[in-house]
Amino acid sequence: MNNPCLLCDKLSRIQELPADDVVWQFPHSVALLGPWQYYTGYCVLITRTHHTELHQLDPVTRQIFLEEMTLLAKAIEITFQPRKMNYELLGNQVPHLHWHLFPRSNDDPDTLKPVWLALDMAERDAAEKNRLQSAALSRGEIAVRLRTTLKKLEAPLP
Amino acid sequence: MNNPCLLCDKLSRIQELPADDVVWQFPHSVALLGPWQYYTGYCVLITRTHHTELHQLDPVTRQIFLEEMTLLAKAIEITFQPRKMNYELLGNQVPHLHWHLFPRSNDDPDTLKPVWLALDMAERDAAEKNRLQSAALSRGEIAVRLRTTLKKLEAPLP
Repeated sequence: MNNPCLLCDKLSRIQELPADDVVWQFPHSVALLGPWQYYTGYCVLITRTHHTELHQLDPVTRQIFLEEMTLLAKAIEITFQPRKMNYELLGNQVPHLHWHLFPRSNDDPDTLKPVWLALDMAERDAAEKNRLQSAALSRGEIAVRLRTTLKKLEAPLP
Repeated sequence: MNNPCLLCDKLSRIQELPADDVVWQFPHSVALLGPWQYYTGYCVLITRTHHTELHQLDPVTRQIFLEEMTLLAKAIEITFQPRKMNYELLGNQVPHLHWHLFPRSNDDPDTLKPVWLALDMAERDAAEKNRLQSAALSRGEIAVRLRTTLKKLEAPLP
């Protein structure tokens, strides 16, 4: 590519990422722990291949990728029990298919609004940035809890 | 239900909605033309049954629903040629599964950001609200163009 893709580059160097960041490797996507852990369990699910819109995936790959998204969202919900999950595939800045999966808590004063209002503020306000990057649990503990749930969900029935 | 769902109620009265509003009726969902037609082609795709999270749908229904979402997004893209599609399933205010499908244009000065920053401003500013509800085409013409594309996409191969 003439313009290197940030997410293609990131996935090509996945062994170099902090272990806490790589939550799960699915057949067609990789789940990374997102930076904004005020939304505890927030993950970014990235396709292994470079495509910009869902219809560009062949139907079987798309179906599996969207089942991976559903499974990850279910795992976040089971683990951290939000009032609602938010699923967002934007790509306005990095047009490589990736889902933002944000669990929304009852404790969030902005729980009725999209996360982007607070995240936009965090770009200009260091205290807000720190608040939204922080959680009661460490990133390592969040990743471990998500993986524990994912293992149960993916495990075959006895 | 003790708390009536706004979207269940809306779908139960679909015959009463303006004809321009109902873009397409899929087997598992209904596509309505959204209010913010600055994002020309913006649709809201609502499941016919009341569920709040994707994993609550049985796998076959979910697969078809997500294919309907992909087809509608493809139709919006073909018809209005945005630089990027944004797919968002939030439900923070109305927790009945519905996708916001926003086409993002190169002409939008905020094209690198989520739409919600401008839409939040529109709640407080009548001029901004009017700007984001307006398009170069009428709502009727937008709906007709989307339906024309959807008919071609759904048509069997010759």
